[in-house]
Amino acid sequence: MSRTLPQPSTEDIDLVTVLRALADPVRLEVLREMAASGEPSPCSAENYDVDVKAATLSHHFRVLREAGVTTTFVEGRRRWVELRRADLDKRFPGLLDSVLA
Amino acid sequence: MSRTLPQPSTEDIDLVTVLRALADPVRLEVLREMAASGEPSPCSAENYDVDVKAATLSHHFRVLREAGVTTTFVEGRRRWVELRRADLDKRFPGLLDSVLA
Repeated sequence: MSRTLPQPSTEDIDLVTVLRALADPVRLEVLREMAASGEPSPCSAENYDVDVKAATLSHHFRVLREAGVTTTFVEGRRRWVELRRADLDKRFPGLLDSVLA
Repeated sequence: MSRTLPQPSTEDIDLVTVLRALADPVRLEVLREMAASGEPSPCSAENYDVDVKAATLSHHFRVLREAGVTTTFVEGRRRWVELRRADLDKRFPGLLDSVLA
């Protein structure tokens, strides 16, 4: 059993908000790693090649989730995060590919 | 005779800086109009369908130019601005098309 944290529906994903969420080097790196793996990954700093504290990474995951770029879901004590590739490709075709290339 | 205001060379255009420059509704609207016209346009508010003061628009043009998104050139007392489409398409293929669609 898992529950998904609040996120905008596909049609409510806003371009300016997404661009703001993408416009950060740490978030871009995390997203590139997520895109490469193509599956949910744990929300923990050791999973990503970034040099930030856990609280900072949590903030970044929140920005991404609230913008509609990622889904976060909770299973027991663990949080997982996944790129909303299908939703983003539907709303803004080509954007993720161009930014994460 | 015209002179071009300072701008980053093509290879120095930075993705995070470009995303920050794009992440604004007024700048997106101005860029869409520039992309539609496909030619240099005067740096004056009456040329764009945006409700901002001249000083604010000047700020937006500066952000776009410094990010490498547009070129500004000066002819006598007039300023013109042009989208750096070829440079951006070279650096980040598909980005402008996805954002200005």
